[in-house]
Amino acid sequence: MENKFRRIKRTEIHKGKRVHLFHDRLVTPTGKEVEWELIMHPGASAVIPIDDEGKIVMVRQYRNASDDYVLEIPAGVFDAPDEDPLVCAKRELEEEIGYTSEDVTFLYKFYSSIGICDEIIHIFVAKNLIVSKQNLDDDEFVTIERYTLDELVDMVLDGRLTDNKTISAIMTYKVSLERA
Amino acid sequence: MENKFRRIKRTEIHKGKRVHLFHDRLVTPTGKEVEWELIMHPGASAVIPIDDEGKIVMVRQYRNASDDYVLEIPAGVFDAPDEDPLVCAKRELEEEIGYTSEDVTFLYKFYSSIGICDEIIHIFVAKNLIVSKQNLDDDEFVTIERYTLDELVDMVLDGRLTDNKTISAIMTYKVSLERA
Repeated sequence: MENKFRRIKRTEIHKGKRVHLFHDRLVTPTGKEVEWELIMHPGASAVIPIDDEGKIVMVRQYRNASDDYVLEIPAGVFDAPDEDPLVCAKRELEEEIGYTSEDVTFLYKFYSSIGICDEIIHIFVAKNLIVSKQNLDDDEFVTIERYTLDELVDMVLDGRLTDNKTISAIMTYKVSLERA
Repeated sequence: MENKFRRIKRTEIHKGKRVHLFHDRLVTPTGKEVEWELIMHPGASAVIPIDDEGKIVMVRQYRNASDDYVLEIPAGVFDAPDEDPLVCAKRELEEEIGYTSEDVTFLYKFYSSIGICDEIIHIFVAKNLIVSKQNLDDDEFVTIERYTLDELVDMVLDGRLTDNKTISAIMTYKVSLERA
């Protein structure tokens, strides 16, 4: 497609701890000026950790957005926009569930919420887990639960999994194994 | 889990066209006060439209977050927080790709970005499509592309699909058909 949108102005609106908000002014392919909001995000990694029994090690934690405890794969935000996604993935694996691994492979990546935010989440699969030590932030209260892949697939289909990075990762991992 | 977080204060920081940002003050289960940002969102619906040849009708549109044209399933934001997700799904089906359908079924729903936003996206499957008329907003430039489900699965696995509501919907639909 040749007629691209063109950004002519970017204005910072708010810089919070997690939300860095801008107003962008763009010119559409037909020359109309439009103003769109954009949240800039450094990026994140998430990990599907497979234990020695073949179970996936999940975290359940409180989420303000849903005012509830939500089951997710371990994940975390980059320390800086240029952080290596693999380094971030290994750090979160250790901090959130207390494992290290030298067998962490990239699966895929995606925009989590492309309409308003430039966050890209990189999904990894970690095997051959080595017990280390959890190291949570002081506002993180995380419990660990283990499920088989097929149990998690069922939990997507009956609505018990609600976090879309987790749903996408579980379903994509499931399909990738069938294709392999 | 019994020891819940408790919200003690909510402050509006910014009200934009799409981004409605709050600072929430919460008390953790151990009594510590923390401040978290939250973007409040009315909710959204997205549709997997299946045409008479069994192909999925997709939209490609410019996204400011990626500064690129991105392939997605048709989707749109609720007119109001209490809008019926099915009504929203049918509206977007007509506005974005120019079809109506009386055969639109709910598949599942999810939080798109649970760490910072309360948006829930409801995913539907639409069949028996009836040709109507596209009706785009004046800042929407959408082209339509059709793919088989297996082509889209390949496009997730090789990185050509990048929007996570679309990836999640395609992979979940694929797995749900295999389970049916």
